[in-house]
Amino acid sequence: MRWADLEKSEHLKVDRFTIRCDITIANKLYKERRRAAYGLVKVPPSDLHQHLGELLASKQGADVTFHVGGETFRAHRYILASRSPVFQAELLGPMRESHAAAVVEIQDMEAQVFQALLEFVYTDALPQDMTREEDAVICQHLLVVADRYSMDRLKLVCEDRLCRHINVASVAIILALAEQHRCHGLKEACLQFLVSPAVLNAVAAAEGFDHLANTCPSVLKDLIFKLTDCRLDIWGKTG
Amino acid sequence: MRWADLEKSEHLKVDRFTIRCDITIANKLYKERRRAAYGLVKVPPSDLHQHLGELLASKQGADVTFHVGGETFRAHRYILASRSPVFQAELLGPMRESHAAAVVEIQDMEAQVFQALLEFVYTDALPQDMTREEDAVICQHLLVVADRYSMDRLKLVCEDRLCRHINVASVAIILALAEQHRCHGLKEACLQFLVSPAVLNAVAAAEGFDHLANTCPSVLKDLIFKLTDCRLDIWGKTG
Repeated sequence: MRWADLEKSEHLKVDRFTIRCDITIANKLYKERRRAAYGLVKVPPSDLHQHLGELLASKQGADVTFHVGGETFRAHRYILASRSPVFQAELLGPMRESHAAAVVEIQDMEAQVFQALLEFVYTDALPQDMTREEDAVICQHLLVVADRYSMDRLKLVCEDRLCRHINVASVAIILALAEQHRCHGLKEACLQFLVSPAVLNAVAAAEGFDHLANTCPSVLKDLIFKLTDCRLDIWGKTG
Repeated sequence: MRWADLEKSEHLKVDRFTIRCDITIANKLYKERRRAAYGLVKVPPSDLHQHLGELLASKQGADVTFHVGGETFRAHRYILASRSPVFQAELLGPMRESHAAAVVEIQDMEAQVFQALLEFVYTDALPQDMTREEDAVICQHLLVVADRYSMDRLKLVCEDRLCRHINVASVAIILALAEQHRCHGLKEACLQFLVSPAVLNAVAAAEGFDHLANTCPSVLKDLIFKLTDCRLDIWGKTG
Protein backbone atom coordinates (compact mmCIF):
# COMPACT_ATOMS: atom_id res chain seq x y z
CA MET A 1 0.00 0.00 0.00
CA ARG A 2 1.36 3.37 -0.94
CA TRP A 3 1.78 6.13 1.64
CA ALA A 4 -0.69 8.40 -0.14
CA ASP A 5 -3.31 5.61 -0.24
CA LEU A 6 -2.86 4.97 3.47
CA GLU A 7 -3.36 8.65 4.32
CA LYS A 8 -6.62 8.61 2.39
CA SER A 9 -7.79 5.31 3.88
CA GLU A 10 -10.78 5.04 6.20
CA HIS A 11 -8.75 2.62 8.37
CA LEU A 12 -6.51 5.47 9.49
CA LYS A 13 -8.05 7.03 12.56
CA VAL A 14 -6.20 9.81 14.52
CA ASP A 15 -2.88 8.77 12.96
CA ARG A 16 -3.42 5.12 14.01
CA PHE A 17 -4.55 1.95 12.33
CA THR A 18 -5.22 -1.60 13.58
CA ILE A 19 -3.87 -4.82 12.09
CA ARG A 20 -5.84 -7.98 12.74
CA CYS A 21 -4.08 -11.34 12.33
CA ASP A 22 -5.96 -14.65 12.08
CA ILE A 23 -3.48 -17.36 13.00
CA THR A 24 -4.24 -21.00 12.23
CA ILE A 25 -1.84 -23.37 13.98
CA ALA A 26 -1.53 -25.58 10.95
CA ASN A 27 0.63 -28.34 12.37
CA LYS A 28 -1.86 -29.08 15.12
CA LEU A 29 -4.72 -28.99 12.63
CA TYR A 30 -2.84 -31.27 10.21
CA LYS A 31 -2.09 -33.73 13.01
CA GLU A 32 -5.77 -33.81 13.95
CA ARG A 33 -6.79 -34.38 10.34
CA ARG A 34 -4.20 -37.16 9.99
CA ARG A 35 -5.39 -38.74 13.25
CA ALA A 36 -8.93 -38.81 11.85
CA ALA A 37 -7.57 -41.11 9.14
CA TYR A 38 -5.86 -43.63 11.48
CA GLY A 39 -7.20 -47.14 11.17
CA LEU A 40 -8.50 -46.64 7.63
CA VAL A 41 -5.82 -49.06 6.37
CA LYS A 42 -5.86 -52.51 7.97
CA VAL A 43 -2.49 -54.25 7.72
CA PRO A 44 -2.88 -58.03 8.11
CA PRO A 45 -0.36 -59.97 10.24
CA SER A 46 2.88 -61.28 8.72
CA ASP A 47 2.36 -64.00 6.09
CA LEU A 48 6.02 -64.93 5.68
CA HIS A 49 5.57 -68.22 7.57
CA GLN A 50 2.52 -69.08 5.47
CA HIS A 51 4.36 -68.46 2.17
CA LEU A 52 7.35 -70.55 3.30
CA GLY A 53 4.99 -73.31 4.49
CA GLU A 54 3.54 -73.39 0.96
CA LEU A 55 7.08 -73.53 -0.46
CA LEU A 56 7.82 -76.58 1.75
CA ALA A 57 4.56 -78.26 0.74
CA SER A 58 5.10 -77.58 -2.98
CA LYS A 59 8.73 -78.85 -2.84
CA GLN A 60 9.43 -76.39 -5.69
CA GLY A 61 13.16 -75.91 -6.12
CA ALA A 62 13.98 -78.37 -3.33
CA ASP A 63 17.68 -79.28 -3.58
CA VAL A 64 18.14 -81.84 -0.82
CA THR A 65 16.41 -85.14 -0.04
CA PHE A 66 16.19 -86.75 3.40
CA HIS A 67 15.47 -90.41 4.10
CA VAL A 68 13.96 -90.65 7.58
CA GLY A 69 12.10 -93.58 9.13
CA GLY A 70 11.34 -95.14 5.75
CA GLU A 71 9.98 -91.91 4.23
CA THR A 72 11.42 -89.33 1.83
CA PHE A 73 11.39 -85.57 2.40
CA ARG A 74 12.47 -82.79 0.01
CA ALA A 75 13.64 -79.39 1.25
CA HIS A 76 15.77 -76.32 0.49
CA ARG A 77 19.27 -76.59 1.96
CA TYR A 78 19.85 -72.83 2.37
CA ILE A 79 16.63 -72.38 4.33
CA LEU A 80 17.56 -75.30 6.61
CA ALA A 81 21.06 -73.86 7.01
CA SER A 82 19.72 -70.41 7.90
CA ARG A 83 17.69 -71.92 10.74
CA SER A 84 20.14 -74.36 12.33
CA PRO A 85 23.93 -74.15 12.68
CA VAL A 86 24.03 -77.96 12.57
CA PHE A 87 22.21 -78.11 9.22
CA GLN A 88 24.54 -75.28 8.12
CA ALA A 89 27.60 -77.42 8.93
CA GLU A 90 26.14 -80.68 7.58
CA LEU A 91 24.69 -79.29 4.34
CA LEU A 92 27.10 -76.44 3.51
CA GLY A 93 30.22 -76.99 5.61
CA PRO A 94 33.52 -78.66 4.59
CA MET A 95 31.87 -82.09 5.05
CA ARG A 96 29.18 -81.26 2.56
CA GLU A 97 30.82 -82.95 -0.41
CA SER A 98 29.37 -86.25 0.73
CA HIS A 99 25.92 -84.64 0.88
CA ALA A 100 26.28 -82.54 -2.26
CA ALA A 101 24.56 -85.24 -4.29
CA ALA A 102 21.64 -84.21 -2.15
CA VAL A 103 20.52 -87.34 -0.31
CA VAL A 104 20.89 -87.38 3.47
CA GLU A 105 20.10 -90.42 5.63
CA ILE A 106 18.90 -89.62 9.16
CA GLN A 107 18.97 -92.44 11.71
CA ASP A 108 17.12 -92.72 15.03
CA MET A 109 14.23 -90.46 14.09
CA GLU A 110 10.60 -91.13 13.23
CA ALA A 111 9.21 -89.72 9.98
CA GLN A 112 6.42 -87.81 11.80
CA VAL A 113 9.01 -86.08 14.00
CA PHE A 114 11.12 -85.02 11.00
CA GLN A 115 7.99 -83.71 9.27
CA ALA A 116 7.24 -81.58 12.35
CA LEU A 117 10.87 -80.38 12.40
CA LEU A 118 10.65 -79.29 8.75
CA GLU A 119 7.37 -77.46 9.39
CA PHE A 120 8.97 -75.60 12.26
CA VAL A 121 12.01 -74.68 10.12
CA TYR A 122 9.75 -73.12 7.45
CA THR A 123 6.94 -71.70 9.59
CA ASP A 124 8.24 -71.29 13.18
CA ALA A 125 5.18 -73.25 14.34
CA LEU A 126 4.33 -76.88 15.12
CA PRO A 127 1.70 -78.86 13.17
CA GLN A 128 -1.85 -77.99 14.30
CA ASP A 129 -3.61 -81.23 13.41
CA MET A 130 -2.29 -83.48 16.19
CA THR A 131 -4.32 -85.09 18.99
CA ARG A 132 -3.31 -84.25 22.57
CA GLU A 133 -1.56 -87.62 22.86
CA GLU A 134 0.34 -87.19 19.58
CA ASP A 135 1.33 -83.68 20.64
CA ALA A 136 2.80 -85.00 23.91
CA VAL A 137 4.81 -87.70 22.16
CA ILE A 138 6.00 -85.51 19.25
CA CYS A 139 7.09 -82.73 21.62
CA GLN A 140 9.21 -85.18 23.62
CA HIS A 141 10.95 -86.34 20.46
CA LEU A 142 11.25 -82.83 19.05
CA LEU A 143 12.91 -81.59 22.22
CA VAL A 144 15.69 -84.10 21.62
CA VAL A 145 15.87 -83.15 17.93
CA ALA A 146 15.96 -79.41 18.75
CA ASP A 147 18.96 -80.03 20.99
CA ARG A 148 20.65 -82.11 18.27
CA TYR A 149 20.17 -79.35 15.66
CA SER A 150 20.86 -76.43 18.08
CA MET A 151 17.45 -74.88 17.48
CA ASP A 152 16.96 -72.96 20.71
CA ARG A 153 13.51 -71.55 20.04
CA LEU A 154 12.09 -74.94 18.99
CA LYS A 155 13.50 -76.39 22.20
CA LEU A 156 11.70 -73.72 24.27
CA VAL A 157 8.46 -74.24 22.34
CA CYS A 158 8.64 -77.98 23.16
CA GLU A 159 9.49 -77.27 26.81
CA ASP A 160 6.49 -74.94 27.06
CA ARG A 161 4.15 -77.51 25.49
CA LEU A 162 5.45 -80.34 27.65
CA CYS A 163 4.69 -78.27 30.78
CA ARG A 164 1.03 -78.70 29.79
CA HIS A 165 1.44 -82.47 29.34
CA ILE A 166 2.84 -83.15 32.82
CA ASN A 167 0.74 -85.75 34.69
CA VAL A 168 1.24 -88.69 37.04
CA ALA A 169 2.02 -91.08 34.19
CA SER A 170 4.38 -88.75 32.28
CA VAL A 171 6.17 -86.64 34.88
CA ALA A 172 9.04 -89.08 35.45
CA ILE A 173 9.78 -89.39 31.72
CA ILE A 174 9.49 -85.62 31.16
CA LEU A 175 11.69 -84.84 34.19
CA ALA A 176 14.37 -87.24 32.98
CA LEU A 177 14.19 -85.63 29.51
CA ALA A 178 14.46 -82.14 31.02
CA GLU A 179 17.51 -83.18 33.03
CA GLN A 180 19.25 -84.86 30.09
CA HIS A 181 18.74 -81.84 27.80
CA ARG A 182 19.35 -79.04 30.35
CA CYS A 183 15.79 -77.63 30.21
CA HIS A 184 15.68 -75.61 33.44
CA GLY A 185 12.11 -74.31 33.10
CA LEU A 186 10.64 -77.72 32.28
CA LYS A 187 12.60 -79.39 35.10
CA GLU A 188 11.34 -76.79 37.57
CA ALA A 189 7.75 -77.36 36.32
CA CYS A 190 8.10 -81.12 36.97
CA LEU A 191 9.51 -80.54 40.46
CA GLN A 192 6.70 -78.05 41.23
CA PHE A 193 4.22 -80.75 40.15
CA LEU A 194 5.84 -83.34 42.41
CA VAL A 195 6.05 -81.38 45.67
CA SER A 196 2.44 -82.21 46.60
CA PRO A 197 2.38 -85.36 48.81
CA ALA A 198 -0.76 -86.68 47.06
CA VAL A 199 0.94 -86.33 43.65
CA LEU A 200 4.15 -87.86 44.96
CA ASN A 201 2.30 -90.94 46.27
CA ALA A 202 0.46 -91.40 42.99
CA VAL A 203 3.71 -91.14 40.98
CA ALA A 204 5.40 -93.62 43.32
CA ALA A 205 2.48 -96.03 42.86
CA ALA A 206 2.82 -95.66 39.08
CA GLU A 207 6.50 -96.70 39.43
CA GLY A 208 7.63 -93.35 38.07
CA PHE A 209 10.45 -93.15 40.60
CA ASP A 210 11.92 -96.42 39.38
CA HIS A 211 12.23 -94.88 35.93
CA LEU A 212 13.79 -91.73 37.36
CA ALA A 213 16.18 -93.63 39.61
CA ASN A 214 17.34 -95.68 36.63
CA THR A 215 17.74 -92.86 34.13
CA CYS A 216 18.49 -89.76 36.24
CA PRO A 217 19.34 -90.52 39.84
CA SER A 218 20.67 -86.97 40.22
CA VAL A 219 17.15 -85.58 39.84
CA LEU A 220 15.94 -87.42 42.95
CA LYS A 221 18.39 -85.31 44.97
CA ASP A 222 16.89 -82.10 43.50
CA LEU A 223 13.44 -83.37 44.38
CA ILE A 224 14.49 -84.05 47.99
CA PHE A 225 15.85 -80.49 48.34
CA LYS A 226 12.64 -79.12 46.81
CA LEU A 227 10.53 -81.07 49.31
CA THR A 228 12.74 -79.88 52.18
CA ASP A 229 12.34 -76.25 51.03
CA CYS A 230 8.56 -76.70 50.97
CA ARG A 231 8.53 -78.24 54.47
CA LEU A 232 10.67 -75.36 55.75
CA ASP A 233 8.18 -72.94 54.18
CA ILE A 234 5.31 -74.69 55.96
CA TRP A 235 7.20 -74.73 59.28
CA GLY A 236 8.04 -71.08 58.79
CA LYS A 237 4.34 -70.29 58.29
CA THR A 238 2.94 -72.50 61.08
CA GLY A 239 5.74 -72.06 63.67
CA MET B 1 -11.77 -109.98 54.40
CA ARG B 2 -13.30 -113.36 55.17
CA TRP B 3 -16.85 -113.61 56.59
CA ALA B 4 -15.56 -115.24 59.78
CA ASP B 5 -12.99 -112.43 60.31
CA LEU B 6 -15.69 -109.80 59.82
CA GLU B 7 -17.98 -111.47 62.43
CA LYS B 8 -15.12 -111.31 64.94
CA SER B 9 -14.11 -107.75 64.05
CA GLU B 10 -14.53 -104.85 66.48
CA HIS B 11 -15.84 -102.74 63.58
CA LEU B 12 -19.07 -104.81 63.49
CA LYS B 13 -21.56 -103.18 65.85
CA VAL B 14 -25.19 -104.45 66.08
CA ASP B 15 -24.85 -106.16 62.69
CA ARG B 16 -23.61 -102.92 61.09
CA PHE B 17 -20.26 -101.48 60.03
CA THR B 18 -19.16 -98.14 58.62
CA ILE B 19 -16.97 -97.60 55.58
CA ARG B 20 -15.05 -94.35 55.40
CA CYS B 21 -13.78 -93.24 51.98
CA ASP B 22 -11.12 -90.52 51.58
CA ILE B 23 -11.48 -89.25 48.04
CA THR B 24 -8.75 -87.08 46.48
CA ILE B 25 -9.94 -85.46 43.25
CA ALA B 26 -6.65 -86.01 41.52
CA ASN B 27 -7.35 -84.32 38.20
CA LYS B 28 -8.17 -81.04 39.93
CA LEU B 29 -5.06 -81.34 42.08
CA TYR B 30 -2.92 -82.15 39.03
CA LYS B 31 -4.35 -79.19 37.16
CA GLU B 32 -3.52 -76.91 40.09
CA ARG B 33 0.02 -78.27 40.27
CA ARG B 34 0.46 -77.80 36.51
CA ARG B 35 -0.92 -74.27 36.74
CA ALA B 36 1.70 -73.47 39.38
CA ALA B 37 4.31 -74.23 36.72
CA TYR B 38 2.88 -71.94 34.01
CA GLY B 39 5.24 -69.20 32.92
CA LEU B 40 8.37 -71.08 33.98
CA VAL B 41 9.35 -71.47 30.31
CA LYS B 42 9.64 -68.21 28.37
CA VAL B 43 9.22 -68.72 24.61
CA PRO B 44 10.77 -65.83 22.65
CA PRO B 45 8.92 -64.37 19.63
CA SER B 46 9.36 -65.90 16.17
CA ASP B 47 12.88 -65.50 14.74
CA LEU B 48 12.11 -66.78 11.23
CA HIS B 49 12.26 -63.27 9.72
CA GLN B 50 15.59 -62.62 11.47
CA HIS B 51 17.15 -65.84 10.15
CA LEU B 52 15.95 -65.13 6.60
CA GLY B 53 17.23 -61.55 6.89
CA GLU B 54 20.66 -62.98 7.72
CA LEU B 55 20.38 -65.34 4.73
CA LEU B 56 19.70 -62.34 2.45
CA ALA B 57 22.61 -60.39 3.94
CA SER B 58 25.01 -63.34 3.65
CA LYS B 59 23.96 -64.06 0.02
CA GLN B 60 24.81 -67.72 0.77
CA GLY B 61 23.39 -69.96 -1.93
CA ALA B 62 21.97 -67.02 -3.88
CA ASP B 63 21.05 -68.23 -7.37
CA VAL B 64 19.80 -65.09 -9.09
CA THR B 65 21.39 -61.67 -9.68
CA PHE B 66 19.49 -58.44 -10.24
CA HIS B 67 20.87 -55.29 -11.85
CA VAL B 68 18.85 -52.34 -10.55
CA GLY B 69 19.72 -48.64 -10.73
CA GLY B 70 23.40 -49.32 -11.34
CA GLU B 71 23.73 -51.75 -8.41
CA THR B 72 23.86 -55.54 -8.15
CA PHE B 73 21.74 -57.66 -5.78
CA ARG B 74 21.93 -61.42 -5.12
CA ALA B 75 18.95 -63.42 -3.91
CA HIS B 76 17.29 -66.85 -3.80
CA ARG B 77 14.78 -67.34 -6.61
CA TYR B 78 12.54 -69.83 -4.75
CA ILE B 79 12.12 -67.48 -1.81
CA LEU B 80 11.24 -64.59 -4.15
CA ALA B 81 8.82 -66.87 -6.02
CA SER B 82 7.13 -67.99 -2.80
CA ARG B 83 6.40 -64.36 -1.91
CA SER B 84 5.23 -62.90 -5.21
CA PRO B 85 3.28 -64.52 -8.06
CA VAL B 86 5.04 -62.13 -10.46
CA PHE B 87 8.51 -63.26 -9.34
CA GLN B 88 7.13 -66.83 -9.57
CA ALA B 89 6.19 -66.31 -13.22
CA GLU B 90 9.33 -64.34 -14.13
CA LEU B 91 11.87 -66.57 -12.38
CA LEU B 92 10.25 -70.02 -12.61
CA GLY B 93 7.53 -69.78 -15.28
CA PRO B 94 7.70 -70.76 -18.96
CA MET B 95 9.58 -67.52 -19.71
CA ARG B 96 12.31 -68.37 -17.24
CA GLU B 97 14.73 -69.80 -19.80
CA SER B 98 15.90 -66.31 -20.59
CA HIS B 99 16.50 -65.71 -16.86
CA ALA B 100 17.90 -69.15 -16.06
CA ALA B 101 21.43 -67.84 -16.48
CA ALA B 102 20.47 -65.90 -13.41
CA VAL B 103 20.90 -62.23 -14.29
CA VAL B 104 17.77 -60.09 -14.34
CA GLU B 105 17.76 -56.42 -15.42
CA ILE B 106 15.10 -54.28 -13.73
CA GLN B 107 14.30 -50.92 -15.32
CA ASP B 108 12.58 -47.88 -13.79
CA MET B 109 13.50 -48.63 -10.18
CA GLU B 110 15.99 -47.07 -7.78
CA ALA B 111 18.51 -49.34 -6.06
CA GLN B 112 17.37 -48.25 -2.57
CA VAL B 113 13.78 -49.21 -3.42
CA PHE B 114 14.79 -52.66 -4.66
CA GLN B 115 16.88 -53.16 -1.50
CA ALA B 116 13.80 -52.35 0.61
CA LEU B 117 11.71 -54.75 -1.53
CA LEU B 118 14.21 -57.58 -0.95
CA GLU B 119 14.25 -56.92 2.79
CA PHE B 120 10.46 -57.11 2.85
CA VAL B 121 10.49 -60.37 0.87
CA TYR B 122 12.82 -62.01 3.40
CA THR B 123 11.66 -60.39 6.66
CA ASP B 124 8.11 -59.05 6.13
CA ALA B 125 9.33 -55.69 7.44
CA LEU B 126 10.71 -52.45 5.97
CA PRO B 127 14.23 -51.16 6.71
CA GLN B 128 14.42 -49.48 10.12
CA ASP B 129 17.30 -47.09 9.50
CA MET B 130 15.57 -44.51 7.28
CA THR B 131 14.91 -40.87 8.10
CA ARG B 132 11.29 -39.70 8.06
CA GLU B 133 11.86 -38.07 4.66
CA GLU B 134 13.47 -41.20 3.19
CA ASP B 135 10.63 -43.31 4.60
CA ALA B 136 8.04 -41.11 2.88
CA VAL B 137 9.82 -41.31 -0.48
CA ILE B 138 10.63 -45.03 -0.31
CA CYS B 139 7.04 -45.90 0.68
CA GLN B 140 5.67 -44.03 -2.34
CA HIS B 141 7.98 -45.97 -4.64
CA LEU B 142 7.40 -49.28 -2.84
CA LEU B 143 3.65 -48.90 -3.17
CA VAL B 144 4.09 -48.87 -6.95
CA VAL B 145 6.51 -51.81 -6.78
CA ALA B 146 4.15 -53.81 -4.50
CA ASP B 147 1.42 -53.38 -7.11
CA ARG B 148 3.79 -54.42 -9.90
CA TYR B 149 4.82 -57.63 -8.04
CA SER B 150 1.32 -58.37 -6.64
CA MET B 151 2.52 -58.23 -3.03
CA ASP B 152 -0.71 -57.30 -1.26
CA ARG B 153 0.61 -57.07 2.30
CA LEU B 154 3.55 -54.85 1.27
CA LYS B 155 1.08 -52.59 -0.49
CA LEU B 156 -1.01 -52.27 2.68
CA VAL B 157 2.10 -51.65 4.81
CA CYS B 158 3.07 -48.79 2.45
CA GLU B 159 -0.51 -47.42 2.47
CA ASP B 160 -0.49 -47.45 6.27
CA ARG B 161 2.87 -45.68 6.47
CA LEU B 162 1.88 -43.10 3.86
CA CYS B 163 -1.20 -42.22 5.95
CA ARG B 164 1.30 -40.89 8.51
CA HIS B 165 3.17 -38.88 5.85
CA ILE B 166 0.12 -36.94 4.59
CA ASN B 167 0.68 -33.18 4.82
CA VAL B 168 -0.08 -30.04 2.81
CA ALA B 169 2.93 -30.55 0.54
CA SER B 170 2.42 -34.28 -0.05
CA VAL B 171 -1.33 -34.89 0.00
CA ALA B 172 -1.88 -34.23 -3.71
CA ILE B 173 0.90 -36.61 -4.76
CA ILE B 174 -0.22 -39.30 -2.29
CA LEU B 175 -3.87 -38.96 -3.32
CA ALA B 176 -2.95 -39.32 -7.00
CA LEU B 177 -0.86 -42.40 -6.12
CA ALA B 178 -3.73 -43.90 -4.10
CA GLU B 179 -6.13 -43.36 -7.01
CA GLN B 180 -3.76 -44.83 -9.61
CA HIS B 181 -3.09 -47.96 -7.54
CA ARG B 182 -6.60 -48.53 -6.14
CA CYS B 183 -5.64 -47.95 -2.49
CA HIS B 184 -9.06 -47.28 -0.93
CA GLY B 185 -7.88 -46.74 2.66
CA LEU B 186 -5.12 -44.34 1.69
CA LYS B 187 -7.41 -42.41 -0.67
CA GLU B 188 -10.01 -42.07 2.09
CA ALA B 189 -7.28 -40.84 4.48
CA CYS B 190 -6.25 -38.14 1.98
CA LEU B 191 -9.87 -37.02 1.47
CA GLN B 192 -10.43 -36.93 5.27
CA PHE B 193 -7.33 -34.71 5.51
CA LEU B 194 -8.61 -32.36 2.82
CA VAL B 195 -12.16 -31.76 4.10
CA SER B 196 -11.02 -29.06 6.54
CA PRO B 197 -11.35 -25.62 4.83
CA ALA B 198 -8.05 -24.41 6.36
CA VAL B 199 -6.22 -27.46 4.97
CA LEU B 200 -7.94 -27.11 1.61
CA ASN B 201 -6.84 -23.47 1.29
CA ALA B 202 -3.27 -24.33 2.23
CA VAL B 203 -3.15 -27.15 -0.34
CA ALA B 204 -4.60 -24.87 -3.02
CA ALA B 205 -1.94 -22.25 -2.19
CA ALA B 206 0.75 -24.93 -2.54
CA GLU B 207 -0.60 -25.68 -6.03
CA GLY B 208 -1.48 -29.24 -5.01
CA PHE B 209 -4.76 -29.09 -6.92
CA ASP B 210 -2.96 -28.32 -10.15
CA HIS B 211 -1.02 -31.55 -9.74
CA LEU B 212 -4.22 -33.47 -8.95
CA ALA B 213 -6.15 -31.93 -11.83
CA ASN B 214 -3.35 -32.90 -14.20
CA THR B 215 -2.80 -36.45 -12.99
CA CYS B 216 -6.14 -37.56 -11.54
CA PRO B 217 -9.02 -35.24 -12.40
CA SER B 218 -11.45 -37.96 -11.26
CA VAL B 219 -10.31 -37.51 -7.67
CA LEU B 220 -11.45 -33.89 -7.60
CA LYS B 221 -15.00 -35.16 -8.10
CA ASP B 222 -14.65 -37.48 -5.08
CA LEU B 223 -13.35 -34.55 -3.05
CA ILE B 224 -16.33 -32.40 -4.00
CA PHE B 225 -18.76 -35.14 -2.91
CA LYS B 226 -16.81 -35.54 0.33
CA LEU B 227 -17.05 -31.81 1.02
CA THR B 228 -20.78 -31.85 0.25
CA ASP B 229 -21.30 -34.76 2.66
CA CYS B 230 -19.48 -32.81 5.40
CA ARG B 231 -21.55 -29.71 4.81
CA LEU B 232 -24.72 -31.81 4.99
CA ASP B 233 -23.45 -33.29 8.28
CA ILE B 234 -22.87 -29.80 9.68
CA TRP B 235 -26.29 -28.58 8.52
CA GLY B 236 -27.82 -31.70 10.06
CA LYS B 237 -26.13 -30.91 13.39
CA THR B 238 -26.79 -27.17 13.46
CA GLY B 239 -30.27 -27.19 11.85
